[in-house]
Amino acid sequence: MKQALTEKSIVKELKDGGILTPKGFMAAGAYAGLRHKKLDIGMIMSEAPASCAAVYTTSHFQAAPIRVSQDSIEKEGMVQAIVVNSACANACTGEKGLKDAYKTRELAAEKFGLLHQHVVVASTGVIGEYLDMEKIDSGIQLLQPGKSKSDAESFQTAILTTDTNMKSSCFQAEIGGKQISMGGAAKGSGMIHPNMATMLAFVTTDAAISSFYLNQALKEVTDVTFNQITVDGDTSTNDMVAVMANGFAGNEPLTPSDPEWPLFIALLKENCISLAKQIARDGEGATKLIEVTVSGALNDEEARVVAKQIVGSSLVKTAVYGTDANWGRIVGAAGKAKAFINPETVDIKLGTIAILEKSNPVEFCEEKARSYLEKEVICIDVHLNVGTGKGTAWGCDLSYDYVKINASYRT
Amino acid sequence: MKQALTEKSIVKELKDGGILTPKGFMAAGAYAGLRHKKLDIGMIMSEAPASCAAVYTTSHFQAAPIRVSQDSIEKEGMVQAIVVNSACANACTGEKGLKDAYKTRELAAEKFGLLHQHVVVASTGVIGEYLDMEKIDSGIQLLQPGKSKSDAESFQTAILTTDTNMKSSCFQAEIGGKQISMGGAAKGSGMIHPNMATMLAFVTTDAAISSFYLNQALKEVTDVTFNQITVDGDTSTNDMVAVMANGFAGNEPLTPSDPEWPLFIALLKENCISLAKQIARDGEGATKLIEVTVSGALNDEEARVVAKQIVGSSLVKTAVYGTDANWGRIVGAAGKAKAFINPETVDIKLGTIAILEKSNPVEFCEEKARSYLEKEVICIDVHLNVGTGKGTAWGCDLSYDYVKINASYRT
Repeated sequence: MKQALTEKSIVKELKDGGILTPKGFMAAGAYAGLRHKKLDIGMIMSEAPASCAAVYTTSHFQAAPIRVSQDSIEKEGMVQAIVVNSACANACTGEKGLKDAYKTRELAAEKFGLLHQHVVVASTGVIGEYLDMEKIDSGIQLLQPGKSKSDAESFQTAILTTDTNMKSSCFQAEIGGKQISMGGAAKGSGMIHPNMATMLAFVTTDAAISSFYLNQALKEVTDVTFNQITVDGDTSTNDMVAVMANGFAGNEPLTPSDPEWPLFIALLKENCISLAKQIARDGEGATKLIEVTVSGALNDEEARVVAKQIVGSSLVKTAVYGTDANWGRIVGAAGKAKAFINPETVDIKLGTIAILEKSNPVEFCEEKARSYLEKEVICIDVHLNVGTGKGTAWGCDLSYDYVKINASYRT
Repeated sequence: MKQALTEKSIVKELKDGGILTPKGFMAAGAYAGLRHKKLDIGMIMSEAPASCAAVYTTSHFQAAPIRVSQDSIEKEGMVQAIVVNSACANACTGEKGLKDAYKTRELAAEKFGLLHQHVVVASTGVIGEYLDMEKIDSGIQLLQPGKSKSDAESFQTAILTTDTNMKSSCFQAEIGGKQISMGGAAKGSGMIHPNMATMLAFVTTDAAISSFYLNQALKEVTDVTFNQITVDGDTSTNDMVAVMANGFAGNEPLTPSDPEWPLFIALLKENCISLAKQIARDGEGATKLIEVTVSGALNDEEARVVAKQIVGSSLVKTAVYGTDANWGRIVGAAGKAKAFINPETVDIKLGTIAILEKSNPVEFCEEKARSYLEKEVICIDVHLNVGTGKGTAWGCDLSYDYVKINASYRT
């Protein structure tokens, strides 16, 4: 714990940075005509092939671009470009959809003189519609990757669907005597447009690291970051997180046995936490970010399970929206978590306000609790007092607008 | 399948019947002063000790009355009375709460001259408050069990919290040459009052059957009925389903080897399905009952898992509320179910309208779909085409009123 804090303190956030802060990366966004107005196709490119690792949706209905990206990345773990379109998810589109996704990869590879397997593709938008390949083609031809801040923002905008804002992150640390930068861009806010969901996140770094170890790092970090957010409990057909590491920082390739490996993990984790929280906060209809931290669990995994169960409970979400300190709802949600819980030893705090101690109600000031719940970030701390496991999950409140957005879109 | 249909057709529903239709049962409801006005304490009594089986909440935070009822039923499997109060759940109330629940059992036993272990107690209402034992005592003294329809309705009313209506069921069948009646009463509609939830269901029958086999039947039936409904995904601390069988019908005690055992199961199942659907339909803010049937799964259990995943999805629920035929949401929900699904072979129907065939979108009439979704009972049929497993789950739509009820109760 102490070490983690130290690493976190060495890792520095660059508020103004993003996916182009690491050396050797370019980005672009263009208008292919898939949407009414907004930029709808974007790409990130590395000046040289980069080690790449990715995690994908666990949905049974993986979209075509997910399958093509897996094919690219599994070939040799090296990727040079990621092409993303919004408006159409190319999911549930059968053989034709798969062919279209391969064609998208081919068009981008040929336009930029890359190997096909060095291109990753991602789509987000309506399920069950085919990609308009003429528009995709003309969109790709319009892409002009550059290194300026506006190039990064064009990419960040092109990947959004109904998100209310762009999501980016950037952190730096000195590793192996070199300044290592890592930046991220993401989209995702739940199903606002009918059949539209998808969380996509792309992380760039100039660190040198093999795709094998990058993969190991990403899996470790995903479990405690992206897998710990929930907006409405549904998993998209198109979710993907991809990291590209091009080695332009000039460090010795990193391995888990390096003393500074935890620093690299911290870099990746901070980026992913930052993006994950931005996605949760921008959940459909959300007015607040909810952060639930569970400690004293049997182990970290059980702590995460309980935290996610609480933050995903419609009753907890609605109570937070209504600034109602209903601790019974937190107990209700925790009560069904698949984890060891001693019903006699639970402490719960809302911010710093103790509301349950050793599972017994604490008299608390209702007004103070309500005024805490009016904040934009709500922290719920649950201590199970049965072990040393710790975990956090993030979500958002459940408002009238959630129902409005999802019920009345086509009426 | 054919046999089940036959049994179902032999089992007859009595629209006007209820918990007092089976011979040898009495009921009562009274006003103990726990609530503002409404009857708040009730009881069901058998004229002689009855075989009893029950299933309880799986929450880590089982309420005190649940523990006392388990103690009663486990003693010898015989019960003569069930006493239920609303307004206070007696949950998260520690040692004092447990003492109060035992005291409630004792007061009822002594008032009616019963053995302590022949009394089951149940509570539903606010979590974290103690029972007012003076009021409980005076309420119990007011109980005058009778056999009229109004006695049954007094009981049915006394157990309600914020339900909008009473819930009861009644079915009959001839088994072993005797007319067997079985009736049920239930409450439950989600968390309308802060910290209030709880599904309670009580079933009476005059069949003769040992508590051992009754327990076996109840477990089998619960899995496909009460465990297949969801309003908001949260499990109460006080849930309980209890069945009393007093043998007054005079049949030979039933065992699973009887040729008519499936008929008894059908009786129990029809009662439980009826009560479960009434609870789902009365979910907080609900305007519709949603019934999801999954067939063609690897086995029945996986079919039930997928059905419950779909009916519990906030996105599916909101789409149904908004009469929006978003089949992508059904796919999204099914996609994360823990079951074997072949993403290429799924058929989906909304009522009789095919919307997905072999995982490919079907052109359907949007107007027809919308008008179907305006009905009060919405059936979604999903065929996975990978096996012969079948299962159903019930739930309700997610409306503005859900948010209103849960967010603004105390504001």
